[in-house]
Amino acid sequence: MQIEKSVAIVGSGLVGSLLAIYLRKQGHKVTVFDRRPDVRQVEFSGRSINLAMSNRGWKALREAGIEDEIRKLALPLDKRAMHVEGQPIYYQKYGDDGEAIYSISRGVLNRKMIDLAEAAGTEFRFEEKVWDVDMPNARLYTGESEKSKWKEYQFDLIFGADGAFSRIRHKMQRQSRFNYSQHFIDVGYKELSIPANADGSHKLDRGSFHIWPRGEFMLIAMPNLDGSFTCTLFMPFEGETSFETIKTEKDADLFFETHFSDIKDEISNLKRDFFRNPTSAMVTIKCFPWSYYDKITLVGDSAHAIVPFYGQGMNAGFEDISLLNHKMNLHGDDWEKVFEEYQTERKPNADAIAELSYRNFIEMSSKTADPVFLLRKKIEKKFSEKHPELWTPLYSRVTFSSKTYAEALEIGDYQRGIMDEVMNTPGIEEKWDSEEIENKILSLIKK
Amino acid sequence: MQIEKSVAIVGSGLVGSLLAIYLRKQGHKVTVFDRRPDVRQVEFSGRSINLAMSNRGWKALREAGIEDEIRKLALPLDKRAMHVEGQPIYYQKYGDDGEAIYSISRGVLNRKMIDLAEAAGTEFRFEEKVWDVDMPNARLYTGESEKSKWKEYQFDLIFGADGAFSRIRHKMQRQSRFNYSQHFIDVGYKELSIPANADGSHKLDRGSFHIWPRGEFMLIAMPNLDGSFTCTLFMPFEGETSFETIKTEKDADLFFETHFSDIKDEISNLKRDFFRNPTSAMVTIKCFPWSYYDKITLVGDSAHAIVPFYGQGMNAGFEDISLLNHKMNLHGDDWEKVFEEYQTERKPNADAIAELSYRNFIEMSSKTADPVFLLRKKIEKKFSEKHPELWTPLYSRVTFSSKTYAEALEIGDYQRGIMDEVMNTPGIEEKWDSEEIENKILSLIKK
Repeated sequence: MQIEKSVAIVGSGLVGSLLAIYLRKQGHKVTVFDRRPDVRQVEFSGRSINLAMSNRGWKALREAGIEDEIRKLALPLDKRAMHVEGQPIYYQKYGDDGEAIYSISRGVLNRKMIDLAEAAGTEFRFEEKVWDVDMPNARLYTGESEKSKWKEYQFDLIFGADGAFSRIRHKMQRQSRFNYSQHFIDVGYKELSIPANADGSHKLDRGSFHIWPRGEFMLIAMPNLDGSFTCTLFMPFEGETSFETIKTEKDADLFFETHFSDIKDEISNLKRDFFRNPTSAMVTIKCFPWSYYDKITLVGDSAHAIVPFYGQGMNAGFEDISLLNHKMNLHGDDWEKVFEEYQTERKPNADAIAELSYRNFIEMSSKTADPVFLLRKKIEKKFSEKHPELWTPLYSRVTFSSKTYAEALEIGDYQRGIMDEVMNTPGIEEKWDSEEIENKILSLIKK
Repeated sequence: MQIEKSVAIVGSGLVGSLLAIYLRKQGHKVTVFDRRPDVRQVEFSGRSINLAMSNRGWKALREAGIEDEIRKLALPLDKRAMHVEGQPIYYQKYGDDGEAIYSISRGVLNRKMIDLAEAAGTEFRFEEKVWDVDMPNARLYTGESEKSKWKEYQFDLIFGADGAFSRIRHKMQRQSRFNYSQHFIDVGYKELSIPANADGSHKLDRGSFHIWPRGEFMLIAMPNLDGSFTCTLFMPFEGETSFETIKTEKDADLFFETHFSDIKDEISNLKRDFFRNPTSAMVTIKCFPWSYYDKITLVGDSAHAIVPFYGQGMNAGFEDISLLNHKMNLHGDDWEKVFEEYQTERKPNADAIAELSYRNFIEMSSKTADPVFLLRKKIEKKFSEKHPELWTPLYSRVTFSSKTYAEALEIGDYQRGIMDEVMNTPGIEEKWDSEEIENKILSLIKK
């Protein structure tokens, strides 16, 4: 246990709530501010992608003692279900037997996390907007608007868990020598949904992550406990087939009829939802430093927002908290050391998962239709199944391991180098599953 | 001439003043806002590096009809004077006969530019702080502080010329899909100075850019009209030899005695100035888009701040204005088209000079002492002197040409590829000036 501090967390999202639970366990007084209303009392936004909890996330929940509670909200998905045009559905297992990612609705999870944090003694201050921070003195200023009269709060420590467009980071950014970047991709997303059958059962296999790949755009669907699926359409903002070109309900209807005829009729209120739900942007945010002496630090998206194509955003944020807690146990009340080691150890891993997520976006948008790429994946899969001790696929390193993201990226690059050489073998298309190729990989690994 | 518009320029620096002159020539009503006092009425800051005007800058001044006025303030430098420890001074010519860069004090130039803009009918509003912009309506809000009562101004067009930490860009940055990065380097700089001799003459050769390279740090000196030199010390913020380690006047004295004994006694008030003048940071800023419909655009550092190691910051900013003016002549009152073509054409060139400037920083900090690097430069120089029609050095493309920065970077990379191959020649150290090497370069160029 540390000496009790008065702690503010800005942001009541998933990472902020988890942090509150950890800090309460350490014996601190915790106040969470959020500019939005209590998510337990309002309808969720219609702009969210379902979450895929994987090992890193579960580990952080386990250490906080809330894994079992959250498991009840999650559905295991042990495979992808690929809905390729003109082909029967086929399945790709994610990992070994028993390995799965877990689909959870963001709204359902967030409500539960807030319940748990509140039960642990956290004070939540919803609809209270933080506008400024006095960093050296750990003071927060809240109020109705940026120009209204503000209320001042004095804390010992402040955590910025206020997401990609963090107000706390915004203030830190005004310091000299603060490095920062925000990079938006040209693809947006829109939430849609498939309701349950009348008997409450799922309309598609509930143990799969469903993907309808279509080259420049794709639809995905992830199951919810109530029998529904949350769907997400990813598509360029501008260009030939893009959100920009779908202007009317007739356009939307025609678009789905042309490209998703097998699922179109299952999507509820397609034409209404397409225009009612926003088209959201996706951004990679990097910054450094994350901490200000022993006063302030950033966690989750406010420190490292990433694009969602590896399903690791929440997992990475939860792992931040797990690491912070580890540093608290190690360094007790030396908060400057806690924050310093946290940011120094975590930054390369945040950069690594940002890079991996961005690469997955590029891969999904430009390579899923490329036969050479698919052949490459097939060779890699075959080899790793035969020699699991020699070759753990990158996806498994990221998703089913708790070794660092930076290591996963490094080994992934090393494996990529080997596969580049393998793919240069003359006649690889014919002999891809020959002993020659297997031996080639073995000899390259041993180099 | 365009239809008269009411135009605001935020920032009365070099680029803002030049833009004002151009816009007055086009017949517009121009108001320039600056949060700082009139630079003509205060002592200049003690945190500036002298400017090196090169061809791009002169071209923009010529088109504005003020080249001759500014020439009077500038001293031509046709060579580097290298003050290497333990060696006699040696000189490196910048280009062909007649080619030179021009040293100008930032304060002197800025005052003159404001005089000229004012004489052309620009209204200057100094010490008036812009806090907010209503982008769709081109309204500016000014006031004493962010929370004080603001004054509202209505314009037709607004230009952000307010530098690396632009308030206008800050507002644009809140838009979704606005890409932005700020990257600080680990090296800082400090201004020092060498006064004139009693008779007003210069203490060092006034036709040279003086450099004292010392590996991890360096001192430079550029002449002023009044016989003085403005010096800049570039050095890491932290580390073994760094600004951080020089804490007392004694430390400063010892540092200069150890590393700059040949010039130390000429630097005036060294110990006082070292602590009175700030240690400044250097940043590369990139963003996009620069424009908001037909209402707002960014120019100069606010759109593309770069590190100073190519001496192109001001030149690049002036070239922005030159291009904007060209687009005004082309598209008249279609401001959306003016802004759109300006940003689309200019962005790759801004990125290119940012990259070139950063590379020069890396080169200066880590390679000037590397014999392989110096040999490489020697081979390149010899070849380009013998075959000027086949090989224009990168420095000349950037400094003495008005072809695009992007082209300079591209051809520079191509030349680098050739030099990589040349440097791989076995025994290159012995035969670097042989016919064999000359022929090798010739054959590589022809490929």
